[in-house]
Amino acid sequence: MLQHIPTLEDIQATAQRIAPIIHRTPVLTSKSLDELSGAQLFFKCENFQKIGAFKMRGASSVGTLLDEERRQKGLATHSSGNHAQAVALTAKMLGVPAYIVMPTNAPQVKKAAVLGYGATVIDCEPTIEARKATLAQTVDKTGAYFIPPYNDYGVVAGQATSALELLDEVDHLDIVMAPVGGGGLISGTALTCHYLRPEIEVIAGEPKNADDAYRSFHSGKIEPVATTTTIADGLRTSLGEKTFGIIKEYVKDIVTVSEEEITTAMRHIWERMKIVIEPSCAVPLAVVLQQPERFQNKKIGIILTGGNVDLGKLPF
Amino acid sequence: MLQHIPTLEDIQATAQRIAPIIHRTPVLTSKSLDELSGAQLFFKCENFQKIGAFKMRGASSVGTLLDEERRQKGLATHSSGNHAQAVALTAKMLGVPAYIVMPTNAPQVKKAAVLGYGATVIDCEPTIEARKATLAQTVDKTGAYFIPPYNDYGVVAGQATSALELLDEVDHLDIVMAPVGGGGLISGTALTCHYLRPEIEVIAGEPKNADDAYRSFHSGKIEPVATTTTIADGLRTSLGEKTFGIIKEYVKDIVTVSEEEITTAMRHIWERMKIVIEPSCAVPLAVVLQQPERFQNKKIGIILTGGNVDLGKLPF
Repeated sequence: MLQHIPTLEDIQATAQRIAPIIHRTPVLTSKSLDELSGAQLFFKCENFQKIGAFKMRGASSVGTLLDEERRQKGLATHSSGNHAQAVALTAKMLGVPAYIVMPTNAPQVKKAAVLGYGATVIDCEPTIEARKATLAQTVDKTGAYFIPPYNDYGVVAGQATSALELLDEVDHLDIVMAPVGGGGLISGTALTCHYLRPEIEVIAGEPKNADDAYRSFHSGKIEPVATTTTIADGLRTSLGEKTFGIIKEYVKDIVTVSEEEITTAMRHIWERMKIVIEPSCAVPLAVVLQQPERFQNKKIGIILTGGNVDLGKLPF
Repeated sequence: MLQHIPTLEDIQATAQRIAPIIHRTPVLTSKSLDELSGAQLFFKCENFQKIGAFKMRGASSVGTLLDEERRQKGLATHSSGNHAQAVALTAKMLGVPAYIVMPTNAPQVKKAAVLGYGATVIDCEPTIEARKATLAQTVDKTGAYFIPPYNDYGVVAGQATSALELLDEVDHLDIVMAPVGGGGLISGTALTCHYLRPEIEVIAGEPKNADDAYRSFHSGKIEPVATTTTIADGLRTSLGEKTFGIIKEYVKDIVTVSEEEITTAMRHIWERMKIVIEPSCAVPLAVVLQQPERFQNKKIGIILTGGNVDLGKLPF
């Protein structure tokens, strides 16, 4: 397991290790969104990633770090979101068992997806304490390895590989943006940019309605998330100590946006790019559209985090 | 103007002529849809085409065929759908005026899109007679060139270029599929396959609720569309004499699908491929899922026609 902030060599080794398991996702551009924003935008499409989200990178990074013996006992996590599917599919591809602790109120469709990958689902009460206790019991009983959703350097190294591909494909970026929830993606992105192109500004977008990272960034200590009423359901978590340490050092700014700005940006991407994205994905574009003068004529990479959305409950 | 059924040379010349105006669209695959269907599917993504639909190919084909003098007076058509936007954008890119006759009941969003390309919109009563009469007046007054939506060999040559790119990119296809409405796309597709890979079976998909092509194919004469209650709004038109002539000769089969089958296939593409497609696009996949034994293990190219859909009125 990775016990230190990932180095460039760690990130590059991770990319090689997970290459057989993940997709190299395409970078899309949109003339229409460039005209709308006044910037030049490059969208790294993790919505086309396996399981439909970047989480596949972090989970497979840790899964492939384990030695054969450690791996055989299986992988475990607690999650009701994309990370659950990512751990389940990683285990399936490695040919080992997966144990996913899910709250009883998790959507049936999410549970079905995890079961579809052959994982064992362990129900628990929908509290964070119950999740942790049930996970601990599960790990105790099975010996499976717990892959945390974000606060883990192996996970961060995996998420960092998306920016590695982006920088490989697009030259001369001025800015790279991603949303911030638990901080795994933005911290990995910031590391990759820092190592390869330190002149790039890495900017995080966050919903005003779950602005713990914004407040933590400015106070210098982790401020827990106060409300989680945002439509960007992937961003309702609080930062971890490890991800926050990297963010403090290497992220240039965190900008918050309203629910309406998120929904508008999401609709623009759906209508103009014809791709399905989660609300969380739309947060960086919402930031760009909120401050047109700041981003005018900049060459901006935006990581689209995922496309797992309930089509029956769209905000349009 | 093209006065004969396009030859391979016509289609290749069209591809060269329109290359600076259109996108070469990507071909996407989906492991999950391959597993679901038992076939190997290659989706040619015209939903990522300029104006969000393959119609850009046909309109720009004719627009670029006109000599400089003829072109200067502008381009005209009557349409409330993708063809209207395609003619408007072609005119904009060629730097000439566009005159689009639209029924007064056309959705405001469609009208706004056409106006956004700088075209002049001429309102008319929502009957086919009023559309034709208003178009004739407009052409009379302006001298603009009328680009028909499908029943024109220049348009067919343009639509044929999508299959040209598909065959260039994917080897050894057994079957190529597209939906059939007016027949411009499927006839162009059938020509390209006939010239380059005559062993490929070209199969059209059509909604049961607008099955004029199916009935015409079997009776041998054009049967007008009887009902147009299908969700696949791009397929509510009847065949033209020119497109039907090509279809009779070169299309292997036409298969009809129910509204429920279309909606189910559409949802599969949205959820698993994370792309936005119009209902019309889903018709060929609906055919494949309807007859799994027929398509088992076949290598199938499917042309996804467009992605212009009202996000506020999804059938999910």
